[in-house]
Amino acid sequence: MTSTPLPSSLDPEIAARLKRSADGLVPAIAQQYDTGEVLMLGWMDDEALHRTLTTGRCTYWSRSRGEYWVKGDTSGHVQWVKSVALDCDADTVLVKVDQVGAACHTGARTCFDADVLLKNADSGVSSVDQ
Amino acid sequence: MTSTPLPSSLDPEIAARLKRSADGLVPAIAQQYDTGEVLMLGWMDDEALHRTLTTGRCTYWSRSRGEYWVKGDTSGHVQWVKSVALDCDADTVLVKVDQVGAACHTGARTCFDADVLLKNADSGVSSVDQ
Repeated sequence: MTSTPLPSSLDPEIAARLKRSADGLVPAIAQQYDTGEVLMLGWMDDEALHRTLTTGRCTYWSRSRGEYWVKGDTSGHVQWVKSVALDCDADTVLVKVDQVGAACHTGARTCFDADVLLKNADSGVSSVDQ
Repeated sequence: MTSTPLPSSLDPEIAARLKRSADGLVPAIAQQYDTGEVLMLGWMDDEALHRTLTTGRCTYWSRSRGEYWVKGDTSGHVQWVKSVALDCDADTVLVKVDQVGAACHTGARTCFDADVLLKNADSGVSSVDQ
């Protein structure tokens, strides 16, 4: 699943570990640092991760527009970076942020507020299995 | 980014909305329902999402093994499903779960515990920007 990254200023030690999808990206989960809300999922290439680590602002690669996207630059809904972690496989990023206003372009606080497929499941009580 | 899904039992109304990557998958974030911890990110195709919605157990598609993977079947570290939501673009799933034991195969509680790239950033105070 790993492709060759574009040249970037990302720390070579991190770049050497990063496992990218075929399009050179890793999914990046943005989580509100104090409430724990999962706000959104974006995509980062090496340079977006570098900018997220060094500028204090969460920066993604927009797959639809094919350009870097500093969250909040147009909306004002900035994500101030609090911490950044890679997962155990180095193929996913978790960014804890302080989200200004709505994370979602719809105006909702998070991108997961509007389309709930299942809620209040109580699966833990019984031993439901396939 | 959308590919034709494999046949599955997923509700056709949901399947019609789902936006899959080129390999027919969507990223699925597993979050502990009460503490808010982001536990891991896995991948689901239509059938894995269907099973997650209907069996009470979080089910992923393993990209490395090329098979369905019912979390906890080998480790005992089951994820009991509490709620499932799609994001605003219908290309990411958020599953709130009750995680039994460690979510990570390393034995860590979450997959994001061990590889912290940046912590305790205080970017919100100053106007750091690129």
